[in-house]
Amino acid sequence: MKRPLILVTNDDGISAPGIRNLIRIMNDFGDVVVVAPDSPQSGMGHAITIEATLRCDKVVIDDGPQIEYACSGTPVDCVKLAVNQLLDRKPDLCVSGINHGSNSSINVIYSGTMAAAVEGALEGMLSIGFSLLDYAKDADFSEAEIYIRKITELVLKNGMEKRICLNVNIPKIKENEPLKGIKVGRQANANWEEEFEERVDPKGRTYYWLTGKFVNYDKGTDTDEWALANHYVSVVPVQFDMTAFPSISTLNKLFSDDE
Amino acid sequence: MKRPLILVTNDDGISAPGIRNLIRIMNDFGDVVVVAPDSPQSGMGHAITIEATLRCDKVVIDDGPQIEYACSGTPVDCVKLAVNQLLDRKPDLCVSGINHGSNSSINVIYSGTMAAAVEGALEGMLSIGFSLLDYAKDADFSEAEIYIRKITELVLKNGMEKRICLNVNIPKIKENEPLKGIKVGRQANANWEEEFEERVDPKGRTYYWLTGKFVNYDKGTDTDEWALANHYVSVVPVQFDMTAFPSISTLNKLFSDDE
Repeated sequence: MKRPLILVTNDDGISAPGIRNLIRIMNDFGDVVVVAPDSPQSGMGHAITIEATLRCDKVVIDDGPQIEYACSGTPVDCVKLAVNQLLDRKPDLCVSGINHGSNSSINVIYSGTMAAAVEGALEGMLSIGFSLLDYAKDADFSEAEIYIRKITELVLKNGMEKRICLNVNIPKIKENEPLKGIKVGRQANANWEEEFEERVDPKGRTYYWLTGKFVNYDKGTDTDEWALANHYVSVVPVQFDMTAFPSISTLNKLFSDDE
Repeated sequence: MKRPLILVTNDDGISAPGIRNLIRIMNDFGDVVVVAPDSPQSGMGHAITIEATLRCDKVVIDDGPQIEYACSGTPVDCVKLAVNQLLDRKPDLCVSGINHGSNSSINVIYSGTMAAAVEGALEGMLSIGFSLLDYAKDADFSEAEIYIRKITELVLKNGMEKRICLNVNIPKIKENEPLKGIKVGRQANANWEEEFEERVDPKGRTYYWLTGKFVNYDKGTDTDEWALANHYVSVVPVQFDMTAFPSISTLNKLFSDDE
């Protein structure tokens, strides 16, 4: 295989430690082009910019061999711009992250990092989202790097099924407790129990902050949450066909009985 | 059944004709609370506001019996605020729309309208997103209304399976060609072939507009695109478990062979 072309993006913004580490790693695997948000875009889900204009300018952030663009849009905008405007050919691999925080279970639908990876799959690229369960700006990426290298190597060598991407979550590194390996699993049935913090601004008007508590309802041992709780790297294959196939027959009955 | 509590939202903004029509219809089915964006939020996908504050103020827009709140956030923020902050009890039904334009096939993942409906299902409500394939501000909602009433009635009466919502798309009304009925189907394998329009601003800096052409690769007659092209109302059950289950065994083999 000739040297692959690799697109790198994220949702924490182009200067976040997570993406700087991912760029450094990917430079060993291929020719890297970075198209990433110029500011944090966490929680942007699969948002795209359709009512406003996009900026996207070449930038130099460190002395690595990669080419970099900072974009005013969302993570999904970055992938679309890279593939359809900036690059002469479609990248062989799209990687997103390393996200600062978990994108396991239901977080996958809120995550800009994973939306970029899903968009990569939609555009027909091999595509992987990486997240580390550590919000600290000085998070330790060293053990994560071992698994990112291994997964990237296997995916580049063996390819993947069409129309999926990988959601890779890596537990927070613990002293004297190495990661136990990789577990492939499913998205756990978990959710956020939200609470809003109500405050009053200096002018007397009410405003809200979203806060919440993550709750895992899923007792399965084949889930991403189980893997992470047991100090494994979790890999979940993610698709963008959202059809609930088992419900089609029920609904067919419901609507035809009535005619 | 006692009079249901119905939450109405959308992504075109609280004053869009689509949501005004939906509110008017829902007032016949139950007690309506509207929590909708104060400005257009199309293409926002499942975005949530986590890095900024939210405004949400009571408003009166017409003389209907509904209670209304205009919110500065995304459609998903609106659903979260309604359920977790504004309302004393969980609504029995969440409806989103009527969207001005299609949310069929891949549009489901970019759509703020459908993200609100998915969030409704996540919060454990019966949940439906309605879209009309007509972008005109003075679109004709009259025939759509017949189907919206029918589907709402059936769902309130019979309930739905857990953890799904409905994606209802209604063809643009044609003179002398009534809609043929309802087809339940799956999300077609279609995509946008994007192009960016590059322009130069008055200061000489480049910017971009996202444009694109919708392409349906799917020849199936069981898809939403087929239904709409053949002048049926399309109903697709949508889930938020994004796991690509068939790929789990392949990936297990890939990662275990290597150990």
